[in-house]
Amino acid sequence: LPSRLPAVGTTVFTRMSQLAAQHGAVNLGQGFPDFPCDPQLVDMVTDAMRAGFNQYPMMTGAPVLRTAIAAKIGALYGHAYDADSEITVTAGATQALTTAILCCVHPGDEVIIIEPAYDSYLPTVELAGGVPVLVQMDVGPAGYRVPWDRIAAAVTPKTRLLVINTPHNPTGTVLRQADIDALTAIVQGTDILILADEVYEHMVYDGQRHESMSRHPLLAARSFVVSSFGKTYHVTGWKVGYVAAPAPLMAEFRKVHQYNVFTTNTPMQHGIAAYMADPAPYLELPAFYQHKRDLFRAGLAGSRFELLPADGTYFQCVRYGAISSQPEAAFAEWLTTEIKVAAIPVAAFYRGGTESGIVRFCFAKQDDTLRLALDRLARV
Amino acid sequence: LPSRLPAVGTTVFTRMSQLAAQHGAVNLGQGFPDFPCDPQLVDMVTDAMRAGFNQYPMMTGAPVLRTAIAAKIGALYGHAYDADSEITVTAGATQALTTAILCCVHPGDEVIIIEPAYDSYLPTVELAGGVPVLVQMDVGPAGYRVPWDRIAAAVTPKTRLLVINTPHNPTGTVLRQADIDALTAIVQGTDILILADEVYEHMVYDGQRHESMSRHPLLAARSFVVSSFGKTYHVTGWKVGYVAAPAPLMAEFRKVHQYNVFTTNTPMQHGIAAYMADPAPYLELPAFYQHKRDLFRAGLAGSRFELLPADGTYFQCVRYGAISSQPEAAFAEWLTTEIKVAAIPVAAFYRGGTESGIVRFCFAKQDDTLRLALDRLARV
Ligand SMILES: CSCCC(=O)C(=O)O
Ligand SMILES: CSCCC(=O)C(=O)O
Repeated sequence: LPSRLPAVGTTVFTRMSQLAAQHGAVNLGQGFPDFPCDPQLVDMVTDAMRAGFNQYPMMTGAPVLRTAIAAKIGALYGHAYDADSEITVTAGATQALTTAILCCVHPGDEVIIIEPAYDSYLPTVELAGGVPVLVQMDVGPAGYRVPWDRIAAAVTPKTRLLVINTPHNPTGTVLRQADIDALTAIVQGTDILILADEVYEHMVYDGQRHESMSRHPLLAARSFVVSSFGKTYHVTGWKVGYVAAPAPLMAEFRKVHQYNVFTTNTPMQHGIAAYMADPAPYLELPAFYQHKRDLFRAGLAGSRFELLPADGTYFQCVRYGAISSQPEAAFAEWLTTEIKVAAIPVAAFYRGGTESGIVRFCFAKQDDTLRLALDRLARV
Repeated sequence: LPSRLPAVGTTVFTRMSQLAAQHGAVNLGQGFPDFPCDPQLVDMVTDAMRAGFNQYPMMTGAPVLRTAIAAKIGALYGHAYDADSEITVTAGATQALTTAILCCVHPGDEVIIIEPAYDSYLPTVELAGGVPVLVQMDVGPAGYRVPWDRIAAAVTPKTRLLVINTPHNPTGTVLRQADIDALTAIVQGTDILILADEVYEHMVYDGQRHESMSRHPLLAARSFVVSSFGKTYHVTGWKVGYVAAPAPLMAEFRKVHQYNVFTTNTPMQHGIAAYMADPAPYLELPAFYQHKRDLFRAGLAGSRFELLPADGTYFQCVRYGAISSQPEAAFAEWLTTEIKVAAIPVAAFYRGGTESGIVRFCFAKQDDTLRLALDRLARV
């Protein structure tokens, strides 16, 4: 069987989680919380199952959840999506990203991807027959920044889609107004679409604000905006996310969605809809995770790891050049097997495996877990 | 935005369910039970959530569930799939079907689809850049039969995949040993793969047996076999299914799967795994649904509807030529709005909308629901 994705192996997240388990390492690799979700959320899903919400919901998602999502976006970002025609609930954010790419990329279309990049974008573009155009972020002392000039230079008449990720995994970079202005200047007057991966929308620190595409009408009009309840509510295994987009884009999304998964888990949708009635859980998320970020940074402050800025997401990138000249994958493996703290090599987020001597830690962990890891890392 | 799927509208299932709701019709259209699932299954999912199974499972599915699936297939069909490398849990059977097609169909490859066909196969083949080759079933007084001679004639050097569905939706046709022999003769010595949609595997009546591809080593060696817990456990909204395939095929499946959805709902997987410890629920399913089939057939026996055979699935097809000469879609709408019983036009399962004067009813309903519908239908 000739492969449709010959370049693809097992994801780095799976590999590092397995290695961490084998070696009894604290797993700061794959991004997921090691603390429980709110028991109230579990009760709400249980209530939905007991109330009989166990058959197919609407293909587009349970109306009660789509309405709650539209209201949340309206309240936070001021954009009024129509819950019927502009919101679709998905089987996690990955499925939303993949479906968005499959519904708009035709064979030969170019898709601009900014590296380092979450590992699903590129193979999906190839599956659609599209041509990935890779532009690397600049990384200096001030951290990773998006090079808008090089992105502008990468645009051609064949550019169909630009993938944006803010807050950005793995770098923690958060787009600001100046970035939005540069992005707007690039797409204005073109028919380039935007796929905005905003799954860490509620994890932005130091009083900065999340620049959702939904905030900016000119961008919202051409964007698929993707988010994830798994990230926001500490239930990465529930696989419920959503996409918001203007009705004509959403119509194309749904054509592919209905034949990809048809729809998403009914009782989870109803439980999450009930839970969304109280905005506190996501409004309190920045403070919750900023505490963990600060704890983690403080613990590494006196170490030989060099901390990069971490403005958003639940990831912290560090340079390890003062410790080792190993390639990133080897260093991450050594950290996992010898120091017993798993990390992710940032090189895994580049198709060419570009080395920058940087690894990523996930700080979505109980404070005690972080302290144990810090204890080990500080001795390196 | 030019469409990737220009021929696609809203699925007939969504349209007929909406029409049924609008007109207060008994919904025998879209296939889903109107009775609750076993409360024990709900409790097992609740237990899993409370025990903290809420983060990412393995990409391939929770090991405990894959092991239970492999054991079930071994016990029922005698094929020993390796739980690690040959079983993957999916976000429903539709996602398994779509992912299987995307992982093995290259642009220009031909895929043989037998019509009437479940509506997701064909657009997915087109999305993959494949060429659907449609072969229509024969429909005579003995019901629908697969025309193996015409399928053999449709094979070319470009044939990559043959989609098989047994028990068959919408016709209820169940493949028998003679069909298996004919299928074997066609694929033997070729490198044609089989995608076997077996989501109704536990709904086969009158003591017949389900001819899973897994039973037949020569076929199993080239098959993706897909099933659905939604159908088997009366929870169509949970969206948990699986695919079984030989390791080399599964490796390609997983490359696409990990970037399509990454993985499937964790607590549902653990709850279902616990529930599978007792085989009674699926072993008792044939008797459970045969009773409903017989009730439904008996209720229409004296009517002007002509019953076709219904050997499997939870669907009953009927000819309505003695009642009306309307096209199927119009007749199904009339049944829904005037008689207040929704049905699905079988023409919707043909790309060209082939008319045979047949509509499909779903009998996965409480006996009282069926009696109410029969009362109305008998008067037509
Ligand atoms: C889908 S597994 C990876 C989780 C994640 O988003 C990450 O670790 O970057
Ligand atoms: C995915 S909705 C359709 C349910 C079904 O399989 C059918 O009614 O044929």
